[in-house]
Amino acid sequence: MSDFLRKHIENIVRLSDEEYEEILEFFQFRKYRKRQFLIQENQKVDELFIVKSGLLKCGMIDDSGKEQILQFATEDWWISDYTAFYKHQPARLAVDCIDDSEVYSITYTQMNEVCRRIPKAEHFFRVKSNLGYCALQDRVLALMTKTAKERYEDFIHQYSEWSNRIPKQLIASYLGVSRETLSRLYTS
Amino acid sequence: MSDFLRKHIENIVRLSDEEYEEILEFFQFRKYRKRQFLIQENQKVDELFIVKSGLLKCGMIDDSGKEQILQFATEDWWISDYTAFYKHQPARLAVDCIDDSEVYSITYTQMNEVCRRIPKAEHFFRVKSNLGYCALQDRVLALMTKTAKERYEDFIHQYSEWSNRIPKQLIASYLGVSRETLSRLYTS
Repeated sequence: MSDFLRKHIENIVRLSDEEYEEILEFFQFRKYRKRQFLIQENQKVDELFIVKSGLLKCGMIDDSGKEQILQFATEDWWISDYTAFYKHQPARLAVDCIDDSEVYSITYTQMNEVCRRIPKAEHFFRVKSNLGYCALQDRVLALMTKTAKERYEDFIHQYSEWSNRIPKQLIASYLGVSRETLSRLYTS
Repeated sequence: MSDFLRKHIENIVRLSDEEYEEILEFFQFRKYRKRQFLIQENQKVDELFIVKSGLLKCGMIDDSGKEQILQFATEDWWISDYTAFYKHQPARLAVDCIDDSEVYSITYTQMNEVCRRIPKAEHFFRVKSNLGYCALQDRVLALMTKTAKERYEDFIHQYSEWSNRIPKQLIASYLGVSRETLSRLYTS
């Protein structure tokens, strides 16, 4: 079980057995069922989640009642409402499971403490934050400048082998198009 | 001159005189004139910039030839094409000066080296990256869910006292609306 987390961290930084054991103490392992919520809108957000298995999404309901999806997450992806987490604001985003999922979570206090104690942990979280920023920059530039067809092609490329596990309605939300437009993109 | 950088870093983490002197060695001070480019599209991006004074923007020209603005930056803001910087890809964004500007820059190698040598520097850059992520998350949620009027109000709130130094055409680009729509927002 713990091998997953070690492998995930060691993609960025090598750990001794002692360092790894110490870091592991700061994480909680959790299982969630399909449709269960990890974060609900307007709640306090005290955790970041790293996905071990399953499939989750993160989004919000807009004023017209439509779900707007910011991100999907599967194995090796981090997910939360980061603004709520880092700035101690009520959640604007909800995070819930599309499939049964297993995650590790870390609280705000735990994250700061593990970074204070173990320099390699701070390095890991800095690099992950930078990469997360890059993914989000790609997302905002796509929204600003790309056509629905280009965004669809990006989506297939980015989420590749598990894109077919995501219901079409959710893919349409993520791309910001109607279900009918998505069907046309599929067949074009 | 160097007081600015110390104050900027000490918003996050306290430094001894020795630590500060050591960190300062990793930065270059630069002056740019209005309309000068710090980063041009398709170039290699080896630097992040922290603005000491002036006003800059970061954006791209879309397929229809229209400028799309991702971000403005003034005193105490960081600016670059982060994806190009962190992932060693050619720039998709250009960064240029709206006014004469003074910045400090740090290269990719220097950033990694200062973080390796000085734990407080790694902590500083981790926290800044987290906050940058939050700002970008707000930006993408606004693009996905807010009306032009709401985005305009956010803009006035976020860029407050220096929003009137930004030409209207650039504000319209940032908000993703036409110049005419922006005029209506101003007067409504």
